[in-house]
Amino acid sequence: MNNRRHVHAVEWHSDKLVLLDQRKLPNEEVYVICQTLDEAIESIKNMTVRGAPAIGIAAAYACVLSARQRLKETKNNNHSVLNMLLIEDFKALKAARPTAVNLAWAVDKALKILAENTSYKTSVKALELPFELLELAKQIHEEDLANNHLMAELACAHLRHSAQLPFSIITHCNAGSLATGGYGTALGVARLAWQQNIIDKVYADETRPWFQGSRLTAWELQYDNVPVCLNIDSAAAWLMSNKNIKWVIVGADRIAANGDVANKIGTFQLAIAAQFHNVKVMVVAPSSTVDLSIASGDMIEIEMRDSTELTEFNKHELAPAGIETINPVFDVTPARLIDVIVSEKGIIERPSREKMLWVLS
Amino acid sequence: MNNRRHVHAVEWHSDKLVLLDQRKLPNEEVYVICQTLDEAIESIKNMTVRGAPAIGIAAAYACVLSARQRLKETKNNNHSVLNMLLIEDFKALKAARPTAVNLAWAVDKALKILAENTSYKTSVKALELPFELLELAKQIHEEDLANNHLMAELACAHLRHSAQLPFSIITHCNAGSLATGGYGTALGVARLAWQQNIIDKVYADETRPWFQGSRLTAWELQYDNVPVCLNIDSAAAWLMSNKNIKWVIVGADRIAANGDVANKIGTFQLAIAAQFHNVKVMVVAPSSTVDLSIASGDMIEIEMRDSTELTEFNKHELAPAGIETINPVFDVTPARLIDVIVSEKGIIERPSREKMLWVLS
Repeated sequence: MNNRRHVHAVEWHSDKLVLLDQRKLPNEEVYVICQTLDEAIESIKNMTVRGAPAIGIAAAYACVLSARQRLKETKNNNHSVLNMLLIEDFKALKAARPTAVNLAWAVDKALKILAENTSYKTSVKALELPFELLELAKQIHEEDLANNHLMAELACAHLRHSAQLPFSIITHCNAGSLATGGYGTALGVARLAWQQNIIDKVYADETRPWFQGSRLTAWELQYDNVPVCLNIDSAAAWLMSNKNIKWVIVGADRIAANGDVANKIGTFQLAIAAQFHNVKVMVVAPSSTVDLSIASGDMIEIEMRDSTELTEFNKHELAPAGIETINPVFDVTPARLIDVIVSEKGIIERPSREKMLWVLS
Repeated sequence: MNNRRHVHAVEWHSDKLVLLDQRKLPNEEVYVICQTLDEAIESIKNMTVRGAPAIGIAAAYACVLSARQRLKETKNNNHSVLNMLLIEDFKALKAARPTAVNLAWAVDKALKILAENTSYKTSVKALELPFELLELAKQIHEEDLANNHLMAELACAHLRHSAQLPFSIITHCNAGSLATGGYGTALGVARLAWQQNIIDKVYADETRPWFQGSRLTAWELQYDNVPVCLNIDSAAAWLMSNKNIKWVIVGADRIAANGDVANKIGTFQLAIAAQFHNVKVMVVAPSSTVDLSIASGDMIEIEMRDSTELTEFNKHELAPAGIETINPVFDVTPARLIDVIVSEKGIIERPSREKMLWVLS
């Protein structure tokens, strides 16, 4: 495993979308190849690919698959039929998962190209569509990676003077290479902060029910030799009381205009525990994660997933048959519990509507 | 399964200690039979039996096994050898698990009988020892059950006027029939509160890493037709924000003289989330759980268990090989986060050293 140079959650290879199957990590390194839009949608739904920015990138490539497919089907048809089919496809793609806004953000960019393209109304122009969409996808992918590095620099400059060095941090879920175009949002910060001797250890919440912390965060930090220690989610308050933890650093799936942050279930509880312990909370997310159309977090749709995520593991029953469950997979951390939001456009301390607009719009 | 009348975690049957194997629930109902002290100690260590009061009861029966065994071995020996061997046995038993005080509390009662017994110094008296210890164990067992019913009555009288009825509660770990002599501490309250229409639902934290919530609490409440809904531990704050939850109700493993409560890891984090939401916190525990010799919670030893509880499930790897873990299995909730401690001796609101001493000593 250590022979490989780098982990890629999403790649475009030989005109196909190649996804590292995150359901199988860390036991198996298997890649899922998507040749059709339906395969890509299914891979987003079933969490072969996950993490808000990575979902956005995968969706941008999925638009290419859709355009190629529909062009083939409508060869002798007129352009408006193609356009209609693509708009339907893109709508289905946007609906694959509800909470992360990067999915809609990426597909909206593809829709914009579609809108511009239809104005030509010639089959020659239509043939160019997949190439234009591929260029868009690659640009989204590269920008995401570049933004991660930029955010890590901004965050570390801030962290360096926040406490006596080195200190430890807690992270929740996986906001790393596997969740992004590479390097990571929260884990990009962790990587650079470790290099710069700002932190000495990352405590990784295991992150039930999907174990993103154990399976993904622990795996990718260990891979890069960043000291990482795994804990159950509900040990975080104990850690804050007993270890030298100064910051909680997490990613985000959607940030409302007032700075409320939707992220993996448990982030809210972690932020409350942080406030109790005077531990600070940093959210690291590219501006594509910010949804200025949503005034506050209570308007963000929270995805509810299947009960089997709680009642089964690896086909082994964890709970009695027929038990009622509730499985929200995201929650909303109110802006007042967040000390810093880091985006590629700058750092927002004690986020408010005014500051968010000023930095991000 | 529904043909049986009642669940017994600990029983004395045909002169043997019979334990319902809680590691196998809810998939299998298997009983482990202990005929020797070593078997009993191993069953406490490996969590065949768990839950502070149930461990205390099992330990009391284990003393009978030890006395019988040592009497047989020392038949022709003098009484002081027997005494020495038993003191060593009882010491090993006390060390089986460190955090729950009920274990030491029960063994100390057996030691007292031993001390009284040695004064006779006749072999006739020595032969009576197992019978005296058995009487003690049965008394501890019966008192625990009676105390659970009494605590449930006291708690429900308090809950009835605390909010508009019915409301929902959250519980953590398993403080039920399976953790006690029967009926339960926190779940005894839940059972009676449901009967009395005080509550409409119990939200059960699944309780990583051992899944006491999914495997035990969900199982025993479903068995008794008490409405129960399972959630991951880190969804509790989301539930408090989104559901009609008025109380967190939990058991305890050790309560210090100032009212600080050691309980299953995650209780502290849950209590912090409760304070943030103006949800109240009730701890239900018999006075045998109170350790007046310990001034405050920071002096309570917190058991650290094996990393495999985090890195494996059912022989399936959850985390990359060689990962560092930290696995404290209890934490301490400071008294200031606790609204009510319920013991069989009475209710203590906003616990303090003075109130604790007044009610409990």
